[in-house]
Amino acid sequence: MSHADRITFPLGSSSDDNSLPVKNATELPAQSDVLARVKSADDVRAMSPEELAVLAQQVRRRIIEVIATKGGHFGSPLGVVEITVALLHIFDPLKDRVVWDVGHQAYAWKILTGRNDRFETIRQHGGLSGFLKRSENAADVFGAGHASTSIAAAYGMAQARDRQKKNHKVVAVIGDGSMTGGMAYEALNNAGLQRTNMMVVFNDNEMSISQNVWAVHKGLSSLITSPSYNSLKQDIKKMVRTLMGPRAVSTAHTREGAVKGMLMAGPALFFEELGFRYIGPVDGHNLEELIPIMRGASELEGPICLHVITKKGKGLTYAEADPIKYHAATSNMKIETGDMMKSDAPPAYTKVFGNTLTELAAKDERIVAITAAMDGGTGTDIFAKAFPDRFYDVGIAEECAVTMAAGMAAEGMIPVCAIYSTFLQRAFDQILHDVALQHLPVRFVLDRGGLVGADGPTHHGAFDLTYMRLVPGMVLMAPRDEQELRRMIRTQIEYNDGPSAMRYPRGNATGRIDLAATEYPALEIGKGELLQRGEKVALLGIGLMTQHFVKAAALLEEKLGHKVTVFDARFVKPLDRDTILELARTHEFLFTAEDNTIRGGFGSAVNELLAEENAGKFATVFGLPDEFVDHGTPKELYGDLGLLPEQLAERIASRLS
Amino acid sequence: MSHADRITFPLGSSSDDNSLPVKNATELPAQSDVLARVKSADDVRAMSPEELAVLAQQVRRRIIEVIATKGGHFGSPLGVVEITVALLHIFDPLKDRVVWDVGHQAYAWKILTGRNDRFETIRQHGGLSGFLKRSENAADVFGAGHASTSIAAAYGMAQARDRQKKNHKVVAVIGDGSMTGGMAYEALNNAGLQRTNMMVVFNDNEMSISQNVWAVHKGLSSLITSPSYNSLKQDIKKMVRTLMGPRAVSTAHTREGAVKGMLMAGPALFFEELGFRYIGPVDGHNLEELIPIMRGASELEGPICLHVITKKGKGLTYAEADPIKYHAATSNMKIETGDMMKSDAPPAYTKVFGNTLTELAAKDERIVAITAAMDGGTGTDIFAKAFPDRFYDVGIAEECAVTMAAGMAAEGMIPVCAIYSTFLQRAFDQILHDVALQHLPVRFVLDRGGLVGADGPTHHGAFDLTYMRLVPGMVLMAPRDEQELRRMIRTQIEYNDGPSAMRYPRGNATGRIDLAATEYPALEIGKGELLQRGEKVALLGIGLMTQHFVKAAALLEEKLGHKVTVFDARFVKPLDRDTILELARTHEFLFTAEDNTIRGGFGSAVNELLAEENAGKFATVFGLPDEFVDHGTPKELYGDLGLLPEQLAERIASRLS
Repeated sequence: MSHADRITFPLGSSSDDNSLPVKNATELPAQSDVLARVKSADDVRAMSPEELAVLAQQVRRRIIEVIATKGGHFGSPLGVVEITVALLHIFDPLKDRVVWDVGHQAYAWKILTGRNDRFETIRQHGGLSGFLKRSENAADVFGAGHASTSIAAAYGMAQARDRQKKNHKVVAVIGDGSMTGGMAYEALNNAGLQRTNMMVVFNDNEMSISQNVWAVHKGLSSLITSPSYNSLKQDIKKMVRTLMGPRAVSTAHTREGAVKGMLMAGPALFFEELGFRYIGPVDGHNLEELIPIMRGASELEGPICLHVITKKGKGLTYAEADPIKYHAATSNMKIETGDMMKSDAPPAYTKVFGNTLTELAAKDERIVAITAAMDGGTGTDIFAKAFPDRFYDVGIAEECAVTMAAGMAAEGMIPVCAIYSTFLQRAFDQILHDVALQHLPVRFVLDRGGLVGADGPTHHGAFDLTYMRLVPGMVLMAPRDEQELRRMIRTQIEYNDGPSAMRYPRGNATGRIDLAATEYPALEIGKGELLQRGEKVALLGIGLMTQHFVKAAALLEEKLGHKVTVFDARFVKPLDRDTILELARTHEFLFTAEDNTIRGGFGSAVNELLAEENAGKFATVFGLPDEFVDHGTPKELYGDLGLLPEQLAERIASRLS
Repeated sequence: MSHADRITFPLGSSSDDNSLPVKNATELPAQSDVLARVKSADDVRAMSPEELAVLAQQVRRRIIEVIATKGGHFGSPLGVVEITVALLHIFDPLKDRVVWDVGHQAYAWKILTGRNDRFETIRQHGGLSGFLKRSENAADVFGAGHASTSIAAAYGMAQARDRQKKNHKVVAVIGDGSMTGGMAYEALNNAGLQRTNMMVVFNDNEMSISQNVWAVHKGLSSLITSPSYNSLKQDIKKMVRTLMGPRAVSTAHTREGAVKGMLMAGPALFFEELGFRYIGPVDGHNLEELIPIMRGASELEGPICLHVITKKGKGLTYAEADPIKYHAATSNMKIETGDMMKSDAPPAYTKVFGNTLTELAAKDERIVAITAAMDGGTGTDIFAKAFPDRFYDVGIAEECAVTMAAGMAAEGMIPVCAIYSTFLQRAFDQILHDVALQHLPVRFVLDRGGLVGADGPTHHGAFDLTYMRLVPGMVLMAPRDEQELRRMIRTQIEYNDGPSAMRYPRGNATGRIDLAATEYPALEIGKGELLQRGEKVALLGIGLMTQHFVKAAALLEEKLGHKVTVFDARFVKPLDRDTILELARTHEFLFTAEDNTIRGGFGSAVNELLAEENAGKFATVFGLPDEFVDHGTPKELYGDLGLLPEQLAERIASRLS
């Protein structure tokens, strides 16, 4: 494709004109309630430009009010309100296919596709999902809690349409953060090559969850701000006159504007080289500009990229100013000020990890930390503050994170790769092929192991004990509390004979340990801890479930009239074989518990050992069921699954009788 | 980065001048044996240009002679001979870091870094690996059997070097096929953003394993051949005069050449947008051009891309002409003609699958096939021939393949996603998050499950029964022979309630079934087959290991004096619970066997069931050990692991006594 086919617009300076000061968003005059009239997307399609503008403001207000009260994602949903209105005005969500990348931005989509009346239930147990969900609504054609999937899914849908000789439109909406993930590029490359009729709405808010890592932008910004910009501008002006001028689409835009558009067009070149026709940039908060251009783009043949510029947190000045802080809101946020409730709960595991890693790193400068757009989420932001040069946020690029860590380990560094349990699934092959096969001592730290709560099935860390356990040579641990967590990260730093992994749950630690006053020596690899010795019944826990077993044991003692044994396995791999076999010999009943699937996890490992050693005894395994678990608070979910301490005590008692 | 920094050269027409007709390569005059003088890479560094040219020819001849005799990869290793010579002439492999993407191209590297005397042992049991291997030689700084990893690894190594204040060079060598994989892009983006001092040698042979899917090239070629080329050329000439002219590096190249270089520079724009400085294209078979330019590039600061044009199979006319056929050679190839031994062995499982899928697809046009640069390897080339419009080769992009398949399944198509077991690991997250969570009926077909033989640990399908079994709702099967394979693929096509997977081994089927004369009805989901009923001992096999159990049973009957039971489980998930529990009740001893890791696989599944149902009995599990298995013939390897029929019979007998 020739670059001459590109359609560029200057970035409208009007972008800031309709920025809502906080008062406008929250105290919008109770004019005609346009939103109330939207029973389905059909109503949006029928609206006038004036009504659409009011609708966007009312949707924005609705999101702010509900999320400030109930908690949820904040910055992204506010950034795409106008994009959503435009999409629903132009496309039919039940006939056309709009695929959102990372469904957490699609609150406006939910509100405007028949779910406004249930919007208060979002992320609550039994309520609306915080992401798109095929089973929730026909307009949700493809769900996503992980990033960078939308273009591949849309490409498949567009090809299916063509094979079936249908003619509806297929659109993917993807942010620049998601563009850091390799699979987005893979899909662009394929869709471009096949000349697929589809549109990618590239929502450019210059921000992924934490830091934008898309070099195009960096190159671009440095170009625009560089001293050579002015002389270069003269050269480019000439070039534009030669190449672009005669083919300019909109005469409304000045030549000067076209030059600026060209300079803004780093993404243009990128998309065009992958076979997409580029249109933009367009102000994503100005419906008067956005709607006609999007409609025009939707009528073009072939793979189209519509580049839309938006602001995260749009409409709330404090959220616009600090998009990282306002990526998500806790419940009971003060709308006027953006103040979020400070909790006096014990520190989160995440923070304990971040602080401990930073302490250890102060003593050994070989320690580096790597994450994949989760610096705050993994606590590596604490490390990054102390050691900015030793911190790597690779964007939403888990594959790169892991193999890069392998490269660093090969050179004698101590790389700590901190990635949520569910997202590390993206790098499963790299863990096997680049790290473990070469015995490279990469330290994996998996935050959000087990059930995460409101984010639901796309975010639960339900599989890591299984998929990490199958990796030959992996040392795999899970701490029962924050003190154990600290000992385990130290163990990982000191263990240099191969890869290791620690996983721990989302949420607050126990708060029962005075961390400042407690040393945290390394653990012996493969050695569990006997927490109490009893008789007949041995409870073998791992991680969070060890705590549940400790409480269950107290309840059982009342029921049974004797103490039971509680063992914290600490290591899923290598197992503490000697102790487990000894417990099998000396106890009549063995039970295991884990916040991981029962398929191939910790309990299976214990039973593999008992079978290998012909122990003549099974452990009864408690864990997550072999199905996807919905959203809700962890307590609600563990209650549903019979994994709360009192439930475990009852299940054990009933097994004994 | 400004495009003005780019250094472009016209593509030298000398590219074909030194093309070796087959006679030159094989009947090179026995002139000074330069290769024999290379004891280590130091010797290459010291050679004169004339010696290097002879060296390249002798290395090429060495590769041709050994691989034609012993079998192995062919096209890629011949394509990178001069690149390898240049790298070793310029860099010190023990101090600098040269990271090869997919080690199978690095035969010349092995020959010239002290392994020439053992080169005949390549890919043999106990001999040299067919890939790079850290434990084999210090020059192999990072191993790789999977593609697209080199830039991430090199980026990590370069950052480690900078943290350690060292100053050696770091180079990644990556082919255009590997550039279709998303993680290459992720790593370029990060390395570019960090302004990392490193060089990427982009080896452009316009060919991945089967078909090159990199849209940049397609766009490029169509541009050059389009009717508007000439008028565009005039425009670009002006632009070049304005922008590029004054900054041209080599005055030896004409202005006309620069224009051509610019048009060739699709990759230039791509790399530059990701922050790399582009240099090229350079003729990768002309050492006089390659060495000075590579040396010059190595002295530049920042992230550098050196674009080298090569030909797969270089030096053998038939291999240059048909790079797909000569991607690899079987042993005993005739060098003069390129004739490869036709085998009269039974058809490979791969072919049975390809033929069966094609038969089924003739009756249902919703069936589409998707692969990831493995069309011949998975048998989908047969399908592609019959239904070119319904076939998708996405390049080395497993993530895209799986999510695209999910998109198609969401639209009512019947997508069959055929990917090697080991490469499907790349899409583990997409299987969970995009397919299974949404209950989408994507049909996974995993070729090369179990031990693959000479390709070794990077290619063994040793983990799939575990990583697929943990996926909620997955139907997971493995056939014991080609007839079962046919029934299973039909079962997959008919089963539409969620995802399903079938895995089978590399190699030839049994040949015991007259496929043409045999119907192949679908199977009942979750129902195994009792192959023979005996007493006391029940052998529960899956896939290939069912065959081994059948033979072991015959041997056991002699030893024990009574028949034993043999059960083909067929399904790893859902298990045939009723039959297995019945066998547990009626037999004293249960044994399972699988060509998958014993961690969390089929045997674990059986024991999970026995524990859940409190059957009071374990199965003894036979399978791959919890470690990486080396290369060799499958028979040698299974022999090492005690998994041959006679070994299984003995292990069972000793367990009984």
